[in-house]
Amino acid sequence: MTGSFRLERLGGWGVTAAEGFLAGATYAGIKGEHAAFKLDLGLLYSEVPAESAGTFTTSRIPGQPVKVSRARIGRPVRAVIVNSGCANVATGEEGLHNALEMTQLAAQKLGIDPMEVLVASTGVIGTQLPMGRIRAAVPRIVLSREGGAEFAKAITTTDSRTKEIAFEVWTDAGSFRIGGAAKGAGMIHPNMATMLAFITTDAAVVPGFLQSSLREAVEATFNQIDIDGDMSTSDTVFLLANGRSGVGPIGPESPLAEAFRSALGEVCLHLAKEIARDGEGARHLIQVTVGGARTLAEARQAARAVASSVSLKAAVYGRDPNWGRVVAALGASGVEVDESRLTIRLGEFTLFREGRPVPFERDAARRYLESPEVEFVVNLNLGSHQASAWASDLTEEYVRLNSVYTT
Amino acid sequence: MTGSFRLERLGGWGVTAAEGFLAGATYAGIKGEHAAFKLDLGLLYSEVPAESAGTFTTSRIPGQPVKVSRARIGRPVRAVIVNSGCANVATGEEGLHNALEMTQLAAQKLGIDPMEVLVASTGVIGTQLPMGRIRAAVPRIVLSREGGAEFAKAITTTDSRTKEIAFEVWTDAGSFRIGGAAKGAGMIHPNMATMLAFITTDAAVVPGFLQSSLREAVEATFNQIDIDGDMSTSDTVFLLANGRSGVGPIGPESPLAEAFRSALGEVCLHLAKEIARDGEGARHLIQVTVGGARTLAEARQAARAVASSVSLKAAVYGRDPNWGRVVAALGASGVEVDESRLTIRLGEFTLFREGRPVPFERDAARRYLESPEVEFVVNLNLGSHQASAWASDLTEEYVRLNSVYTT
Repeated sequence: MTGSFRLERLGGWGVTAAEGFLAGATYAGIKGEHAAFKLDLGLLYSEVPAESAGTFTTSRIPGQPVKVSRARIGRPVRAVIVNSGCANVATGEEGLHNALEMTQLAAQKLGIDPMEVLVASTGVIGTQLPMGRIRAAVPRIVLSREGGAEFAKAITTTDSRTKEIAFEVWTDAGSFRIGGAAKGAGMIHPNMATMLAFITTDAAVVPGFLQSSLREAVEATFNQIDIDGDMSTSDTVFLLANGRSGVGPIGPESPLAEAFRSALGEVCLHLAKEIARDGEGARHLIQVTVGGARTLAEARQAARAVASSVSLKAAVYGRDPNWGRVVAALGASGVEVDESRLTIRLGEFTLFREGRPVPFERDAARRYLESPEVEFVVNLNLGSHQASAWASDLTEEYVRLNSVYTT
Repeated sequence: MTGSFRLERLGGWGVTAAEGFLAGATYAGIKGEHAAFKLDLGLLYSEVPAESAGTFTTSRIPGQPVKVSRARIGRPVRAVIVNSGCANVATGEEGLHNALEMTQLAAQKLGIDPMEVLVASTGVIGTQLPMGRIRAAVPRIVLSREGGAEFAKAITTTDSRTKEIAFEVWTDAGSFRIGGAAKGAGMIHPNMATMLAFITTDAAVVPGFLQSSLREAVEATFNQIDIDGDMSTSDTVFLLANGRSGVGPIGPESPLAEAFRSALGEVCLHLAKEIARDGEGARHLIQVTVGGARTLAEARQAARAVASSVSLKAAVYGRDPNWGRVVAALGASGVEVDESRLTIRLGEFTLFREGRPVPFERDAARRYLESPEVEFVVNLNLGSHQASAWASDLTEEYVRLNSVYTT
């Protein structure tokens, strides 16, 4: 039995929308004393122990915080400490020690066990964290229900804006909340490339179901976005469920399972699209939907391949309805394609149908490409599976940003 | 027994350096009457039947010429006809018919069998070849020993210059020649992404050995270059051996096998690096060498992954010695990496040694990055295999070129 449910967007809320979560941030000076004043150290706290789930980068050279948090995920946690400005990657034993100390500093402040603290870092690779400044800064953080916005700001690096979302989920068995914050911008690619996301809910959720629901949501959303093809050493998504709403426990057989999965999926989708939209220098969000695939895995792979095409991204920036680059990317995707069945649309314009180019109004298509969101729809006509992927366009501004970003 | 040999570069020569090969080109107007006057139709001819070998794109949507030539390769051929301006991809049965007709037009002109003619096309995807213009143009082509340069020009698209090389190979058993021409520029990626190369030799070479030698050379060179990560629908390398030098037949057990393989490797290496150097908008050639890998396949994969990093390419353009992006690319490459053994050099500067950042002279490293060729050297310290990959940097000019290139 699946109960009915309804999502209500809670404007202006993020990681602290759910009951019992507090957050805050401060300026520690992690990029150096002379760096522009910007919040760079955030803390998220649950008043009661929360079940935890997480997904991490698949890089063979993961950041030190990834190593620490991966070992703790799946058990109840109370807090997450995060910094921007330094990724704490390729920093050897000293870096590992520093990641552990960050969890100890948070635990001291909060009067909890360090094992109940998760950690994440984002920023430059290969420099050590300025631990003196972090030791001085952690006690200064003020936690509150209103601190979610500061937390969202503290995790950003080259992001042009913060990324937050929250919903109230109304069900027959009462309501619960779910919300989150993320950072992204450069180096975004499938398989959790540099991005951080922190999601909280006050529903009670069975740990195994929490992890499987997160994995499923991440695969359909964060793993389907691309900005520049890089995969980061630091990608992390955390999901904490503290049960404070009194709704649950929700497991795979619960009538609320679908409501929870849907709400989590919406949170991830919103944050993933926000990340793609805010790609460094980006002007457009490109959505690529591939239908008619033989399997879901092939639909996702094909959509990602098209969304990852550097030359297609440059074409979108130039408002050039260059469907040939869609063909090239599909052909190279490794997915089964039968040219004689293939159809490609750009918004309302059919560009290619069953193996043949279709004449279309080029000027109108160019005008469509001025929209902030543009969509390519591919039908492989080989099966019934469908998936989407999202990317930013490639602009001269991206190159400028990435040729001067300090090591 | 392997005889000694010596390569002598033949300046100014390409596909017609080898005895018995003639070439020529003309302006057919393939991109339209109003397109800038540029040679766009080339013809290569061997006075006697030549053994043939070829490697092709692995795209699931190969161009029509690829379908035609793939079916003919491995048998003796007499000629190759090539056009630029239209790739004849995603053009349905009409396109396939046109590719076949191109070989018929060449055969008619030369008085040979159409089955002895190979065909290749490069340019825009999804438009039909203007066959009327091509029919009128083929008879105008004038073949000569001096026509190699015109042929090299006719195959280019967004290339800023032609790419040619030739050697005289001196051996104990006499000398033979080998030379070639290539086009590349945009959309270059491992696995034969948009590039064409035509290689000729007047050695006599056993067909099976011709094909295996070409495959081996292509894997070490053309498949290790990257400009923008795209794989093209049209990539093709042809190798013709007509025996006119009187040297050979060369087979795998022949004393001349090593001389032939080396010379072929040098031709492919030169052309591949020329393609990478001439990436659209490129300012630098980036060479990435990965040593200490467990297998040759892993060495190649890791080198390609680093060379393909979009953010690293942007960093090189900005003269930023950002070795963190090398770490990120290696970690994501899928290849076994042990951070505590990893060493990374940029030219003479050691940036990272066995898990730890090494202080280096940043200003001197930035000056090094002003060189037209820059090299990153990675030692995985896990085995004894080594490979290189080559890429262009990513510039604002690349984006400008790719956002306006006509569909």
